[in-house]
Amino acid sequence: MTFPNDARVALNALLGERFSEKQADRDHHAGTEAHHRPAPPEAVAWPESTEEVAEIVRICRGNGVAIVAHGAGSSLEGNTSAVKGGLSVDLNRMNQILDVRPEDLDCTVQAGVNREELNTHLRDTGLFFPIDPGAHASLGGMAATRASGTNAVRYGTMRENVLCLTVVTPEGEIIRTARRARKSSAGYDLTHLFVGSEGTLGIITEVTLKLYGRPEAVRAAVCTFSDPASASRTAIEAIQVGIPLARVEYLDDGCIRAVNAYSHLEETEADTLFVEFHGSEAGVAEQVAFFEEIATGNGAAHFRWAEREEDRNRLWKARHSAYTATVNQRPGCRGWATDVCVPLSRLPECIDHAKGLMKSCGIPASIMGHVGDGNFHVVFSVDPTAPEELETVARINSAMVEQALSCDGTCTGEHGVGLGKRKYMEAEHGPALSLMRRIKSALDPENLMNPDKILPPMETPAQ
Amino acid sequence: MTFPNDARVALNALLGERFSEKQADRDHHAGTEAHHRPAPPEAVAWPESTEEVAEIVRICRGNGVAIVAHGAGSSLEGNTSAVKGGLSVDLNRMNQILDVRPEDLDCTVQAGVNREELNTHLRDTGLFFPIDPGAHASLGGMAATRASGTNAVRYGTMRENVLCLTVVTPEGEIIRTARRARKSSAGYDLTHLFVGSEGTLGIITEVTLKLYGRPEAVRAAVCTFSDPASASRTAIEAIQVGIPLARVEYLDDGCIRAVNAYSHLEETEADTLFVEFHGSEAGVAEQVAFFEEIATGNGAAHFRWAEREEDRNRLWKARHSAYTATVNQRPGCRGWATDVCVPLSRLPECIDHAKGLMKSCGIPASIMGHVGDGNFHVVFSVDPTAPEELETVARINSAMVEQALSCDGTCTGEHGVGLGKRKYMEAEHGPALSLMRRIKSALDPENLMNPDKILPPMETPAQ
Repeated sequence: MTFPNDARVALNALLGERFSEKQADRDHHAGTEAHHRPAPPEAVAWPESTEEVAEIVRICRGNGVAIVAHGAGSSLEGNTSAVKGGLSVDLNRMNQILDVRPEDLDCTVQAGVNREELNTHLRDTGLFFPIDPGAHASLGGMAATRASGTNAVRYGTMRENVLCLTVVTPEGEIIRTARRARKSSAGYDLTHLFVGSEGTLGIITEVTLKLYGRPEAVRAAVCTFSDPASASRTAIEAIQVGIPLARVEYLDDGCIRAVNAYSHLEETEADTLFVEFHGSEAGVAEQVAFFEEIATGNGAAHFRWAEREEDRNRLWKARHSAYTATVNQRPGCRGWATDVCVPLSRLPECIDHAKGLMKSCGIPASIMGHVGDGNFHVVFSVDPTAPEELETVARINSAMVEQALSCDGTCTGEHGVGLGKRKYMEAEHGPALSLMRRIKSALDPENLMNPDKILPPMETPAQ
Repeated sequence: MTFPNDARVALNALLGERFSEKQADRDHHAGTEAHHRPAPPEAVAWPESTEEVAEIVRICRGNGVAIVAHGAGSSLEGNTSAVKGGLSVDLNRMNQILDVRPEDLDCTVQAGVNREELNTHLRDTGLFFPIDPGAHASLGGMAATRASGTNAVRYGTMRENVLCLTVVTPEGEIIRTARRARKSSAGYDLTHLFVGSEGTLGIITEVTLKLYGRPEAVRAAVCTFSDPASASRTAIEAIQVGIPLARVEYLDDGCIRAVNAYSHLEETEADTLFVEFHGSEAGVAEQVAFFEEIATGNGAAHFRWAEREEDRNRLWKARHSAYTATVNQRPGCRGWATDVCVPLSRLPECIDHAKGLMKSCGIPASIMGHVGDGNFHVVFSVDPTAPEELETVARINSAMVEQALSCDGTCTGEHGVGLGKRKYMEAEHGPALSLMRRIKSALDPENLMNPDKILPPMETPAQ
């Protein structure tokens, strides 16, 4: 693959030093997070506006150059690797917070703004944006991946929190997917079509998001259980009786061990729930009492409450470090995170099934789960130079997906399909997959937008 | 237009008496709700299963017969009129509640089940389904129209509450749009593509819905204000400070007058809010106190609380009768309901603008608004035999849409596009409209599914 000279000349003229073919820049955009094989693009562009993105797309289209949109590069399924070469469009210089409208509880940001930057900016407004994937993801990337995180049980995922998008289409046209009204019945839901489309239908350049008032009162807690089922049952029962949990995260004993080592903590090494409650003072007190009753009924021990903000922050920092803590247990190893999500009632059996697979494989691994959503990850610390380890984890991943599908669940709750989950699309969607293919062909007939992602190759549907 | 004999023979063989070409049956499926001109199909079919719908679609497709899915027939924009003749597929015999899963807080119903039937069925489970458009709509129709109602401010619309759908595609293939997991990142969001697609991309035959626990405590209230702005400002401020209002409905003085006459009530004839709070006993008490403070600050008077279920039911029955009460003010007249939805902060100016247009027109009309969503209706009682009245209302409707679009709002918050709102699609969506056309062509290349709905004709984009 060589980069067409006409495209090079045009992109150089448009972007100057914000266009690069240097090996270091290409390697930095190869989608190397997690265990997937790096696939660098032939060149990288750093646009600063939607109009520049549109011009870049038109240049690429005119020269048959594949385009991969690139945010923070923190996705885990090879979602941004440039398997067909071409141009990586890095949106990190599109980092303007364009408008915050406290009176409408919404804001508009460029795609490269990350969630921490937004929340820092919002600090004085009394508002916040709740979606928090583990990584320092960009909001455009989060929309493209339909990301979520620990707050989804209360606030929803990117699916529920994107009001509208500005998108550059494969033709290089700029569209808005919807108006800013909170609801609409005006035609096909383009916003939701692009949320989760992973750059395969166009490039998201601006995101309009719902915001929420900071709760008057927040309390967080940790408690332990004698087994995974008791922990997940506690979360399920709390949701079934209607406690509006803001967060309810499960970490297994191995995960706590890894977090303790990594973050210098001394949490009890047992199946653990991290929970958080948002509301008024009285409302939170009520939720806490109700939750404690349910947890105690399931044998919870070692209850520890974090009422001060700094204690809570330490707690959630530990939770957010769980992935890295697990991966770093073995030097030189990389992460491989499974990501099934199942109906709530099926969660305990799926966690048990995963536990069984983990134990027998001998590779260091942790379970961390957004159990209020029925979503959990097994994170393996895998040696990328050991093919037999990669094979073992691949086998466990597939077994977990098969189990999840048999429970009417999904192969990916929040990481997206990328390259890694394509092989499960047929089993998950059946004949509906052909509709996805038609939509892709209709919107991107030349297959230039993040090619080979989401949809499995036609020739080998099982691959 | 004559119905192809091959299709007649095949449908007769498949359905027997559940296939009809009788004029009375055709007229009953002409989309006559509201002010749109009736357009009867050439025949009507009453399938009883998804498989029968698939077979019907395959027969129609083989004979070039247009297909209009028909639920309760309560849509207001000519959404189910058979403008190209063909077959109306009436889903009312698909009225089975297939599965209720309290442990997962979800259920699956056939498309013809209506919301009251579902809630009656759920009575003993402690669960309920909150979406309540004014009419006795079918759940399939509500999904197809992306309907909402009075509870959307707290529980969302059909957009937020459909977990997955079973759909018969234009090829007559049966697909499921998603798994039953609460979240997923597994490819394009087909569920949201079909929610709101008004039968133009396929026929929804089964709907899987989120359910909610009945709140421990419920309180409802009515209060009046000296002007529309004070009423809507109260709703807006309550939402901005984070009171989790379950319902907040605005009715103008004219609407209260109509409701009083129709429902034999004696509400004060003034700008009025109907509100409802859901939660624990303590939580509701807290919400009520907070809301009263805000309302009083905006000059609220005549506060009346309804704590008993029967009093609340009477209140909401009155609210739900507002459309009929308004239309019935003049014998022989029909309803014409506008349906704009705007960002919350722009609501008072849009209501004021509508008030001005209403006053000067001399046609009886009411405002009723889901003001917590920024959505409101002006309902006119219009004489269908008086072209100048229809013209006047059409002009006001267009002026309201123009105003809403200038506020980044939408021409339809919950009624759908049907025939009536097609003329605004270009102004609302701009170049994004061409993506909708491509999706329609990709999924229904022969244009047999509810033809001429949602998308304006290509020749005359302004019509």
